Amino acid sequence: MRQSKMFIPTQREVPASAESLSHQLMLKSGMIKQLARGVYTYLPITKLVLQNIENIVREEMNRIDGNEVQMPVLAPRELWEESGRWEKYGKELMRLKDRHDRDFLLGPTHEEVVVDLVRDELRSYKRLPLTIYQIQTKFRDELRPRFGLLRGREFIMKDAYSFHIDQESLSKTYQDMYNAYEKIFTRFGLDFRAVEADSGAIGGSHTHEFMALSEIGEDTIVFSENSDYAANIEKAACLRPEEKSDDAEKDIEKVDTPNVKSCSELADLLGIDLKETTKTMVVNVDGELKMIVLRGDHELNTIKLKTFFNSNTEPELADESDILEIFNAQPGSLGPVNSKIPVYIDYQVEVMKNFPVGANEDNYHFINVNLKDVEVEDVGDFRFITEGEMAPDGSGPVKFREGIEVGQVFELGTEYSEALNLTVLNERGQSVPVLMGCYGIGISRALSAIIEKYHDENGIMWPKSVTPFDVHIVMMNVKKEEFVNPAEELYDSLSKQYKVLLDDRDERAGVKFNDSDLIGIPVRVVVGRGIKDGVVEVKFRNSEKTHDVKLEDLESFINEHYN
Amino acid sequence: MRQSKMFIPTQREVPASAESLSHQLMLKSGMIKQLARGVYTYLPITKLVLQNIENIVREEMNRIDGNEVQMPVLAPRELWEESGRWEKYGKELMRLKDRHDRDFLLGPTHEEVVVDLVRDELRSYKRLPLTIYQIQTKFRDELRPRFGLLRGREFIMKDAYSFHIDQESLSKTYQDMYNAYEKIFTRFGLDFRAVEADSGAIGGSHTHEFMALSEIGEDTIVFSENSDYAANIEKAACLRPEEKSDDAEKDIEKVDTPNVKSCSELADLLGIDLKETTKTMVVNVDGELKMIVLRGDHELNTIKLKTFFNSNTEPELADESDILEIFNAQPGSLGPVNSKIPVYIDYQVEVMKNFPVGANEDNYHFINVNLKDVEVEDVGDFRFITEGEMAPDGSGPVKFREGIEVGQVFELGTEYSEALNLTVLNERGQSVPVLMGCYGIGISRALSAIIEKYHDENGIMWPKSVTPFDVHIVMMNVKKEEFVNPAEELYDSLSKQYKVLLDDRDERAGVKFNDSDLIGIPVRVVVGRGIKDGVVEVKFRNSEKTHDVKLEDLESFINEHYN
Repeated sequence: MRQSKMFIPTQREVPASAESLSHQLMLKSGMIKQLARGVYTYLPITKLVLQNIENIVREEMNRIDGNEVQMPVLAPRELWEESGRWEKYGKELMRLKDRHDRDFLLGPTHEEVVVDLVRDELRSYKRLPLTIYQIQTKFRDELRPRFGLLRGREFIMKDAYSFHIDQESLSKTYQDMYNAYEKIFTRFGLDFRAVEADSGAIGGSHTHEFMALSEIGEDTIVFSENSDYAANIEKAACLRPEEKSDDAEKDIEKVDTPNVKSCSELADLLGIDLKETTKTMVVNVDGELKMIVLRGDHELNTIKLKTFFNSNTEPELADESDILEIFNAQPGSLGPVNSKIPVYIDYQVEVMKNFPVGANEDNYHFINVNLKDVEVEDVGDFRFITEGEMAPDGSGPVKFREGIEVGQVFELGTEYSEALNLTVLNERGQSVPVLMGCYGIGISRALSAIIEKYHDENGIMWPKSVTPFDVHIVMMNVKKEEFVNPAEELYDSLSKQYKVLLDDRDERAGVKFNDSDLIGIPVRVVVGRGIKDGVVEVKFRNSEKTHDVKLEDLESFINEHYN
Repeated sequence: MRQSKMFIPTQREVPASAESLSHQLMLKSGMIKQLARGVYTYLPITKLVLQNIENIVREEMNRIDGNEVQMPVLAPRELWEESGRWEKYGKELMRLKDRHDRDFLLGPTHEEVVVDLVRDELRSYKRLPLTIYQIQTKFRDELRPRFGLLRGREFIMKDAYSFHIDQESLSKTYQDMYNAYEKIFTRFGLDFRAVEADSGAIGGSHTHEFMALSEIGEDTIVFSENSDYAANIEKAACLRPEEKSDDAEKDIEKVDTPNVKSCSELADLLGIDLKETTKTMVVNVDGELKMIVLRGDHELNTIKLKTFFNSNTEPELADESDILEIFNAQPGSLGPVNSKIPVYIDYQVEVMKNFPVGANEDNYHFINVNLKDVEVEDVGDFRFITEGEMAPDGSGPVKFREGIEVGQVFELGTEYSEALNLTVLNERGQSVPVLMGCYGIGISRALSAIIEKYHDENGIMWPKSVTPFDVHIVMMNVKKEEFVNPAEELYDSLSKQYKVLLDDRDERAGVKFNDSDLIGIPVRVVVGRGIKDGVVEVKFRNSEKTHDVKLEDLESFINEHYN
């Protein structure tokens, strides 16, 4: 294609709000333009790359007998009420009414729709297994859209759904998908790791996330260097300590702690370590308040709370006003002794002795508290793991790495087929619910993850598998025939084998080279002064070296070095 | 692909609500499934055909320097307020609020968004002309979705937008697009005609619709057999008659017309022809009532009224209650004599003499009315042309043909660039508004139009250019090796050259042949009893004849006959 006809609005400056490198580079290289927060237009370069990404995904999905379909963006409320998610999905679900005042939503995921699609058609186990997928625009009304395409409100997903008569068949397809995902992300050129994950709003039990390792990473991956163990930090389990300290239990005592509002202030005042303190939080679990007690140096993991309490929505910290009303004390002064609400103790607190807690009265704490002083409703794993702790498989200490979630595979089981009445007749003629799996890839996220990996300070460096063009021919002077004619001839001849972009713009050399680096096409061929001797300059985007190559040798030179 | 793994839910019966042939055939052949009124899932066969259609469109758009992008579905209210269309677009615009209570819409067309996209980037005429297009899901909340994909609420469009410094450049791109559309619809295998059209809600002046001629047709095409003249009936102009009759004007007279409510009743009572009567209608033009008088045998064209009055919305007939309140008479008793609201007379009434009109009093008419008896505000062309009338270019009588609109090209001029402040500096350094064109193709409509043309009583008959598969191998018995092995070998060898579907399902022969006819793949190869002698049966979908072909001759036989 001719650059003079293309819309590639490269930028020198990008807004400070562009936090991630991929976001900055996509703006600088004229790949995206924001229309609203988290809503972007994909410009021509992006569209070309997305087509390459989509084709790789399509090939690997078709290879494992995926059926490509396109489900609608709009879905009727009634269908999502059958699964209970019309209410449960919360504010991230974009809802609207049609002209007849009927409720619809913009699909963030398509379990309900795909079950509705097949439930009238699948009658016998003989039609199973079946895998259906689509590559489609999805909607999620993120509270804080950010990082460009990494967390948008309108984005492209590949979502696949599989249907099975038994667990063996589901496990096989789950493994096929897992393997296909490994192929896909390898073809994208990503460093990635499949990790255990929380199943979030989708439901289901067995699930892995595919995380592209990166500098920025929205997610933290917890892994063991001594085993295959890897998990999203949201999910990574903390072991339950087996031994309590041998200390003798002392008697509980109320002490003055004027103006102490945090664990570190308390540790300073008492002359103890932060990890010898405790922190007490009140959370709202589907409208009921619960008290959670952690060690002072640990962080609350509300996703684990959701799993623990099996709640509809992720628990949040209670409002300060509610706390004041119930306890007549500040959130920083709470504790589990004589609590008015049920108390849940983290595993790590379970093994502590003689610890301090808030007295549910401002400026006072109890010290030398022991479990016998507290009415404990239950104990559990309520916190984030910390780097260096023992991995849950006992293989050694965990390390952390930042990552971008680019895919996830789930075994859904019968959750949706039961809710939506998807059954088939089995071999014995009995009606049984169908087992399901679901499998997502963030197409526009994967694009960002690729850029997060393939760039330098001058711009993007596309890997061959997804590059928008193979060769960038830069014409140094568009007004002189001695440059134009050979460049045009090269454009024609190289286009037979490669995707070629011809920079035929009437711009200064500096502008052309800057743009060329930004856009990041793997092979650059400069038609400059050497052309009078039949020589062009070739430079590969991933190297500093330039090569003077004779015109007649150019094609074989590229064939040899670009692969 | 293997049919046993594919989701092609063919149907024997289709609901009576499927009015059009394409809708019935797409349901029967398992191509679509309705999720809500006018909202469909595209099943695997449809997806394959759509990809072929989209690739043809993409090739022809790229050939004329189109830049493919993807604009968002969501657009913010503020942008559409700049153009005035947030209000003006009416109930067909699907609107919603995000979690922050901000207003958004689901794009039915993208003039505002594309102008916003380029207005910060285009500064100089040197960057023009520029053409941007996308193939994308669009939304229009149709009052009466029908005919399957022909009039849906969620559908796929190719929409292109071009930007120009002057009319000459706009005219050139308009013509390039016109020519590209001719190539595209020819490649689809459609019989089509480019016709003059009304520009509807998009605005602009110069415009053509591309109509695929068909049996059902949502639109009527008016054309002359003696010239190139062709127009949508909504637009087709009626000539203003030049001569009045020579009759002497008589004196107006009020007569009893008991229970007469229609023109035909009046004609019967007075013993005259229907075309010697008149009909009077009251219409609501942006909130103001106007009286329109047509000849009794003519039909009101409200789209012409919208153009005539330059109104924001298409005028509608006034409510009966409003008429009763103002005239104290039924809608069937109205007339222009002593009217309380402005009177507009159709050209054909302008040349009438001594005609009857309602007396604005039930059971009475005036007869022998002439224009001197009426206070006429204006005369104009307010009606639909009728078959056999003189074409507006004077070339002869017009004929009618049914058609499906598959594309439209518009010269928009500066309407949107002025509203949204899209200017560039011209050669003299002056800031001038950019001229625009816009160009649509209904991708999912074109698919329907192709099926409306290519089918017989047994199913679809895909033209080669868009067919989902070239060859359908039907294995007659999937349990016997003597059928399975050669069929599998054929599948492997033919797949090197063709897109092949292998019917490897354990079904009866009758089911397989019925499905094969429904799905409509051009070449069918049956691996049946003849295989023991190394012979398969070949049948082309568009012919009744079967051919016994030896295995070793099969490939060359197909190469020769399938093209």
